[in-house]
Amino acid sequence: MKKILNDPESYVDEMLDGLCAAHPEFYRLVGEDKRAVARATPGAEGKVGIVTGGGSGHLPVFTGYVGPGLLDACAIGQVFASPSAEQMADAIRAADRGAGVLRLYGNYGGDVMNFDMAGDLVEMDDIETTTVLLADDVASAPPEEADKRRGVAGMVYAFKIAGAAAEAGKDLTDVTRIAQKAADACRSVGAALSPCTVPQAGKPTFEIAEDEMEMGMGIHGEPGVWRDKLKPADEIAEEMMDRLLADIEVASGDRVSIMVNSLGATPPEELYILYRIVKKRLDGAGADIVMPLVGRYATSMEMAGVSFTLCKLDEELEGYLKAPCDCAFWTVK
Amino acid sequence: MKKILNDPESYVDEMLDGLCAAHPEFYRLVGEDKRAVARATPGAEGKVGIVTGGGSGHLPVFTGYVGPGLLDACAIGQVFASPSAEQMADAIRAADRGAGVLRLYGNYGGDVMNFDMAGDLVEMDDIETTTVLLADDVASAPPEEADKRRGVAGMVYAFKIAGAAAEAGKDLTDVTRIAQKAADACRSVGAALSPCTVPQAGKPTFEIAEDEMEMGMGIHGEPGVWRDKLKPADEIAEEMMDRLLADIEVASGDRVSIMVNSLGATPPEELYILYRIVKKRLDGAGADIVMPLVGRYATSMEMAGVSFTLCKLDEELEGYLKAPCDCAFWTVK
Repeated sequence: MKKILNDPESYVDEMLDGLCAAHPEFYRLVGEDKRAVARATPGAEGKVGIVTGGGSGHLPVFTGYVGPGLLDACAIGQVFASPSAEQMADAIRAADRGAGVLRLYGNYGGDVMNFDMAGDLVEMDDIETTTVLLADDVASAPPEEADKRRGVAGMVYAFKIAGAAAEAGKDLTDVTRIAQKAADACRSVGAALSPCTVPQAGKPTFEIAEDEMEMGMGIHGEPGVWRDKLKPADEIAEEMMDRLLADIEVASGDRVSIMVNSLGATPPEELYILYRIVKKRLDGAGADIVMPLVGRYATSMEMAGVSFTLCKLDEELEGYLKAPCDCAFWTVK
Repeated sequence: MKKILNDPESYVDEMLDGLCAAHPEFYRLVGEDKRAVARATPGAEGKVGIVTGGGSGHLPVFTGYVGPGLLDACAIGQVFASPSAEQMADAIRAADRGAGVLRLYGNYGGDVMNFDMAGDLVEMDDIETTTVLLADDVASAPPEEADKRRGVAGMVYAFKIAGAAAEAGKDLTDVTRIAQKAADACRSVGAALSPCTVPQAGKPTFEIAEDEMEMGMGIHGEPGVWRDKLKPADEIAEEMMDRLLADIEVASGDRVSIMVNSLGATPPEELYILYRIVKKRLDGAGADIVMPLVGRYATSMEMAGVSFTLCKLDEELEGYLKAPCDCAFWTVK
């Protein structure tokens, strides 16, 4: 796991400096310690704001998705570490256009605690906030404990859909309802082949043999459901689809989007090999695939592996999914 | 280097099946053995066609860049192997809209031989062809032997610029002139940290110690200019900029685009760390940076490393660079 960096302590700050230098049309740093990113051009006055936040090391998640039709601001922690409540409050203030702010982020203990505190902090500024948590990783807890599940790539669908609803002028209640509907519509599962290295730790997040894989592993290396010999692509894809379709019903005539996501090092060539089986399974269920997303949407730096996210659409969600958006990582016309 | 695949022999065919299944709005397979990809919706009658081709394993290069404002068709070889002359002829025929076809590709012996033969094959179909070769890798030969240089990520600029010129209705002579101007305007240099594995070979393309890097290495593992301990990001970026700016003059007031490209596994976080120095150097030269490209534009599967490509613009090139394009990997509005 070789990394191109200077001082590990400055990894995130330097990354943010470079990001904003490369794309000043999209991003600007805000907050006292410059650990929140806001849209270069704020949303319209009276638009509902949407903020997210979390640890670094997942680009385009989270910061990358700040932009028109997506998020308004993002608080950024060190690699795999929660931002502080103050940094989150900075992001909320930057996102506020007078119509309230939705906090839309993944279900991790540190992020939940800090975002709750940040909500208290901005109450003093008379900013109304709501919360929607992503908890889409089916491998992280059984269905009866769905509220314990981790949030992973499903958040990309939620950012896109809620972002479009806010851009369309929906009020905070409606944006929150739509974001919750998008979150509820998503199921994800991942499989890891190799770890990544957190700069400040200087060593891989876990060890795994050269001929092994782990099904269901989390994006920070959280334990999965089994570890065994690396299987052929089609077998991996079949099992991942089994796990998704066991957790959410997909019936004939349903409209779904599916994301086949690289965790970082796995190349798009291999995502497309997997996609053959994904499509076969959804075709087999009689579902119509809408706007499949194949690429690197939610990563763990140089980790090798993939995740699938299924997003079951209704007319409202589909309309917002297809609406325009723009950022350095994703343009929908 | 763990890979998600089935039979190594079917890696490319399965990748192409998945690519076309995921993005039928952009790509369709053509040719007897389905080893050419053409636009799903062909360009307008009378538009100059642009084809490329080369070995697989570099997505989005080459196939990914087939689309409006970019390429018309692409011939696809096995991983890191040239397509056949027949496959290239299939691509040329698919690209032909009655106004001739530009062959625009990288300077590799096998590709040159086969594309020359393909030109002979389509002469029988009365298709006029021209050729522009990319030879932008400054580390692959000294300036006085610039025609021996390999073509690398500079081809992305050439695809974009020539593609926009063809879309704008320029004739074959003009599209060829503009493509040659774009090719001449590009200089690239790469640095590799780890190899990738060609599926049919089943082992890494080269060996390199866990604490080493190689400056100037080619995208198939061709030897570079030095191998030494891995250096800090800023030192790597400074040397790469030194090498580019020694090979092409960038003066105050010049307008340039710069690509900071991951060879695959290196994450965007680290590209942005490098970008700080890239920008500092171009600012220092008094150049204006236009549309910087930071991401994975030309890769070698799961190889870790980066390349920089500088493209020196004039008004004509800048206009075409900024023109709209669309494919599964790159949308410019």
